[in-house]
Parts: sequence; structure tokens; C-alpha cells
Amino acid sequence: AESAGCSKSQVIKCRAAVAWGHKQPLVVEEIEVFPPRDHEIRIKVVATGMCHSDLYFLVDCEGWSGFPAVLGHEGAGIVESVGPHVTKFRPGDKVIPVPITQCGECRFCLNPESNLCRFLGCLTQYMQFVSHITSRLKCKGQTLVQFAGISTFSEYTVVSEVALAKINDSAPLETVCLLGCGIPTGYGAAINIAKVKPGSTCAVFGLGAVGLAAVMGCKAAGATRIIVIDTNKDKFEKAKVFGATDFVNPKDHARPIQEVLVEMTNGGVDFSLECVGNVDVMRSAFESCVKGWGVSVVVGYTESGEVSTLPMQLLAGRTWKGCFFGGYKSVESVPKLVDEYMAKKLKVDEFVSHRLPLDRINEAVDLLVQGKSIRTVLEISQVQ
Amino acid sequence: AESAGCSKSQVIKCRAAVAWGHKQPLVVEEIEVFPPRDHEIRIKVVATGMCHSDLYFLVDCEGWSGFPAVLGHEGAGIVESVGPHVTKFRPGDKVIPVPITQCGECRFCLNPESNLCRFLGCLTQYMQFVSHITSRLKCKGQTLVQFAGISTFSEYTVVSEVALAKINDSAPLETVCLLGCGIPTGYGAAINIAKVKPGSTCAVFGLGAVGLAAVMGCKAAGATRIIVIDTNKDKFEKAKVFGATDFVNPKDHARPIQEVLVEMTNGGVDFSLECVGNVDVMRSAFESCVKGWGVSVVVGYTESGEVSTLPMQLLAGRTWKGCFFGGYKSVESVPKLVDEYMAKKLKVDEFVSHRLPLDRINEAVDLLVQGKSIRTVLEISQVQ
Repeated sequence: AESAGCSKSQVIKCRAAVAWGHKQPLVVEEIEVFPPRDHEIRIKVVATGMCHSDLYFLVDCEGWSGFPAVLGHEGAGIVESVGPHVTKFRPGDKVIPVPITQCGECRFCLNPESNLCRFLGCLTQYMQFVSHITSRLKCKGQTLVQFAGISTFSEYTVVSEVALAKINDSAPLETVCLLGCGIPTGYGAAINIAKVKPGSTCAVFGLGAVGLAAVMGCKAAGATRIIVIDTNKDKFEKAKVFGATDFVNPKDHARPIQEVLVEMTNGGVDFSLECVGNVDVMRSAFESCVKGWGVSVVVGYTESGEVSTLPMQLLAGRTWKGCFFGGYKSVESVPKLVDEYMAKKLKVDEFVSHRLPLDRINEAVDLLVQGKSIRTVLEISQVQ
Repeated sequence: AESAGCSKSQVIKCRAAVAWGHKQPLVVEEIEVFPPRDHEIRIKVVATGMCHSDLYFLVDCEGWSGFPAVLGHEGAGIVESVGPHVTKFRPGDKVIPVPITQCGECRFCLNPESNLCRFLGCLTQYMQFVSHITSRLKCKGQTLVQFAGISTFSEYTVVSEVALAKINDSAPLETVCLLGCGIPTGYGAAINIAKVKPGSTCAVFGLGAVGLAAVMGCKAAGATRIIVIDTNKDKFEKAKVFGATDFVNPKDHARPIQEVLVEMTNGGVDFSLECVGNVDVMRSAFESCVKGWGVSVVVGYTESGEVSTLPMQLLAGRTWKGCFFGGYKSVESVPKLVDEYMAKKLKVDEFVSHRLPLDRINEAVDLLVQGKSIRTVLEISQVQ
């Protein structure tokens, strides 16, 4: 009764790629997508990227308790129906779900310095990358965990209104889906968190989509020298497209890579960004910074190990920070990033290295694991 | 010929407390103080504090190569003579030597964000707390290392013009000497580096002079809640004088102290300052911060161990920083701090717990080691 004209009472049967267990291939199954409840929206997913964070939990992370799950959190789609009390969305709206919520009401949302809404994990120390809603997805009688509260590897899914951004009606969903995670994560880390300055020297560690977006952010902020570091030299050509000026392959050096960078830059870089998710690389990135004002931002995600350094590295005036989703307040920022793309101020197409249908999702996994793709966009549904 | 009217050609014989070796009592000896060379100034030391950094190298640090040395770097005195090319100082000027140089010309001095002059250690990774000048002090034919380029535990010493601040002629040297290190170090860390905000909640770990000065800085910046943490409960009364509102003794808790602080503050403090110089305390201070915008500053000095934390602690929007000398550009800032003290805007007298003559310097060492003093001021010379 609260919202009109939608099929919210019906269960939708559709196809989704189900992750049944650690390191198992994804299986495209018929699943049930239940109607949206209070403050929830059911969306038809049109396209989605595959992000390293999806694979982290599928492949790398030992002992994740989230199976069976539907992964995928970097998608774009169209509102199918809305639950009670939803006022900001209507069927037919183009939308991008976001892995970082923005309720707009909590002390974190109200603070201009933070994008870590209360719904994102616990308020204190250890956030967990789990769903903030109970799942609306089932398969063979089992509830499927909605990874990051989203699950875009499905033709339909249900998300909370605090995790959904309404975007420009003319945006091409098969491209702007990448603005749902990786691009804002790297781009924002450079602009919002490192606050890269004009004329500065930057170092970006790791040339996946997040790292390339960080390079693009450094360039947009006016950095004059952008050194990229990756063990896969095939990625350097792509990095040039986004603004990289210098290329360092740690395999070419016997010394710790921070020593190489300090020497290359007469004392260290002004800003560094770790876009790998490895504690040793985090240390290298931090120690590559110049004393006095160097800022290093941890962008890559890992639950393995601890980061460490010598106290002197901090005492000497370096700053160590980190962020999720590039520090962007998600719901309000993603539509603006879509508009920037539409105005050709932001590159997105250049991140798409492959396109595949949902049926071939395991090929997308392999491409990413092998470092052969930047982003594979999975075409999930046809727009009618 | 370059500077007139001073006895720069003469060697001065005077008394100094010599540190002959690790963990050995200081010995008051007759030493020779050679004339100042180019860009150097010879000063008569009137009074000096004893700082934990002096003791760190005497007592804690294994394998320091600086013996024999004259310690002491928190003093005030009067210019006795100046070397060639010195234009900013004249005999009779009241001065405070500083452990952090400010040449005013290097890229670190020219950058408003940094106080780490080129002369402070190497430009790259690992600064060392050694003299930036060759020594002008000798005893029994041996050259004495000038600790931090200063050596205030001597009736006379020679310092570089880039490490000397000219102060107000009416300043009481026996008190403002403490503005040569500990007070700016803690006070500036809160104001310049943490950038404590009005209405915020702060935590200060360690209640030596540096920690108490950090409390004073938090208060001056408008913090409404200042939690102090120390294992010596006798220091809480003194902390109240500077603005502390809550007192936590880790000995009263079985849990990690960061958990206690997170619980006390509904998620963590806005700002924390580590004023101990211990890697475990540095971690506690960092992890006591609230997600999203918490800032932790390492102020305490140690060369033992590495600091570490979980990557998630950084990813969740916390910032980890550090500084020397409170981030103050030393030569230009110390005179302003003296003026603030003279205008009663800054407490200094309240830090003086004991006064002793140079002869009794080992009592000052014992008081500090045993945690019984905040600052012992050693009266080195009479002002004539």
C-alpha cells in the first residue's frame, strides 16, 4: 500500500552465479529473489564488473563464513520494484548499488571527513565486509549471502536504499557499472584522502583497476610525476593511458623497492598509494615517502598479516592513512561521478578490457586471477 | 675580523658533566670549549632541563656510538662570543639552542608543512640523533660528542646559528629553558600535527613533561575531554593542572587499554598522542582512535622495535602521524613560545618539579628514571 505500481509481492526466479564454497568455480543456477521489504529496492542488474574484492573472499581469504553467496558488488541496473517506505526510487530508475552505505543520518555520515556509515560493520574497531541486510536470495532452499549487501552476479537482486545511487537516465549501464567500486576507490583515494597536490611526485603500487584509477586521480590532481610499480610489466602500457610517467618493476631490483624509489626521487615521493592489498607492499609504499610531508594511503584490502614500520618513519613527519571507496560518501557521490564521465572528465571505457555474458563468469575469474584483465564487464541482462 | 668585540680566539676552561659510557654515572669534569668557527656561537649556559632523550642514549639505547659525550639539549643561556659570518647574534643576547635545526634555505625549511631541516640527519629514510656540527668540546685530550649538536650540561658550549633562537631580553632563563625541547614537543604535537579540534575527545599516553605539554596543547585547542593514560597514578594530579579530565591506569585493566578507551568513548577518541616512546603504546594509541577520522600522533622516541597494526585499522579511516619538536620550525617558533609564556598564555613553571646545581646532576638522572620528577632544572651558571 505504501508504494504503488510495482510487483513487490512476487518472487522472481532468475539466473545467478552462486559461490558454493572456497576456491570452487561459480555455478550459474536458478535462484529465487524475494520482494523488497521496508526501505529496500529490487533491481534488475544489467551489467557488472568483477572486482578483486569478490575474488579475495572466493579465492584468497581462508575460512570466510559467507558461503553460499552471490558475489558481485560493482554493477548497474534498473529498479524493478520498491518496498514500503521507499520514496527516492521508482521502477525504471537507473541505479548503481554501492558497497559502502550512506544512511545520511549517523554521526559518520554527518561528519564531512568520513564516509564510513554506521551500517558498515561495527562502530568500533574491526569492520567486517559482510552484508548489512538479511538476504533476499535463495537457491535450492538455502539462503544465499549477499556479498557486501549487493550481489550483482545475479539477474535480479535486492538492496537497501542506503546502498543505492540513482544516476543519470542516459548513462550507459554497461560502462558506468564500474563506478560502483573500483574506479571511485582508487580515484578518490588520490583526490580525497592523499589530497595529491599540483606539481607533486606520486607512486602508485599495483596496476589493477583500482591502481589505474589512482593514477588517473593523481593526474587529475595535477601531479607532474607518477611512478607506477607492478611486477607485471604488461600493465605499464595501460598505465600510460591514465597518466603514468615512470615504471618500476620490483623484479628488476635486488634492493627493497622503497630504496629504489627514494633514490629515483631524491628523498622520496610526496604521495604514495598502495592498491595491492599486501602488508609488505603497504610498508614499501609508506617508506617510499619523503620525510617531512609524505603521505601514504592504504587502498588495497587484506585480512592477512599486520602492517609495520620503524617508529622513526612516523616521527620523521610521514602520514599513514587508509580508506574505503576512495573516501566518497557513496550515495551522493556516485551520481556525480557518472555525470563527470558523461561530460568526458573521467575515463571509464578505458578500464574495460573484456566483456562476457554471465554464463562465462568463470572465464572472468581466470582472467583476473591471471592478471590478464583490467576489468571484465559481465553482461547480465538485456535492457528492454 | 668579521665580528667585533668578542673573545673568540680564546679557549674557555669550564665545568661540564661528561657521559663517559653506557649506564655510567655522569662525571663533572673540567673541559675545554674551543672558539666558535664560521656561523657558530659560543654560549654561557645558565640553566637546562633534563629530558628523557638525554637518558635514552645514556641508559636505554644499547650500542650508542656517541661516548664520550656531553648530553643536555633543553637549555637557555647568553651569547659569549660569535664566530665569523654570524650576523643575527651578539654577545649578551639571551638565547635558547634547539635540537631541530632551521637553516631557512632548504626545501624542508621552505615547505610550510615540515620542520625537518636538511641538517637534521639524512634526507632519506633514517634520521639519526647525532650532532650536525663537529664538536668544539674536549676533555683530557678527547673530543666530546655534542649531543643533538648542543650539550647544555656544560657551563659553556658552541652551537650552530641554524640551531639557536634569540629570545626576549626579559625572559627568565631558569624557566624558559624548558621551551628548548619537551614543552614544544608535546604542545606542538597536539596543536600543529594532530590539529586537535574544539569539542573533541583526546587521549594522551604518558605523563612525563612531553605528555603533560600535549595535554596542555589539547586543552588550548579546545578539547572538551582529555583522557590521560599512565601506569604511575601519582602523575594524575599534575595532569589535572594542565587540563586532563579522565584518568586511566592500564594496571587497573586486564584488557588491552585501547579496548577500554574505545568503550569509554563510544567508539574511540578523535585524537591520541603517544608520549612514551614504546612501540606497543604507539599501537594502543593508534587503535584507540575512532574510525572515520581518528588521528594518532607518535611523539615518543625509540629505536627499539617496530610499530604495527592491522591493515583494517588504517583502511577504516584512521590517520597515523609523527613529529619531532611538535612540528615547530624551531628557530622562528621558540621566541614566540617564550613570548606566549611571558604573556601568561602558556604554562612553563608548572613543569618544574625540582631544581639542582650541576654538581648534583646524577640525582636529576635518578629522579627522572624513577618517575619522581617532571622536570629537574639544573642551574649551570650564575647570570652576572
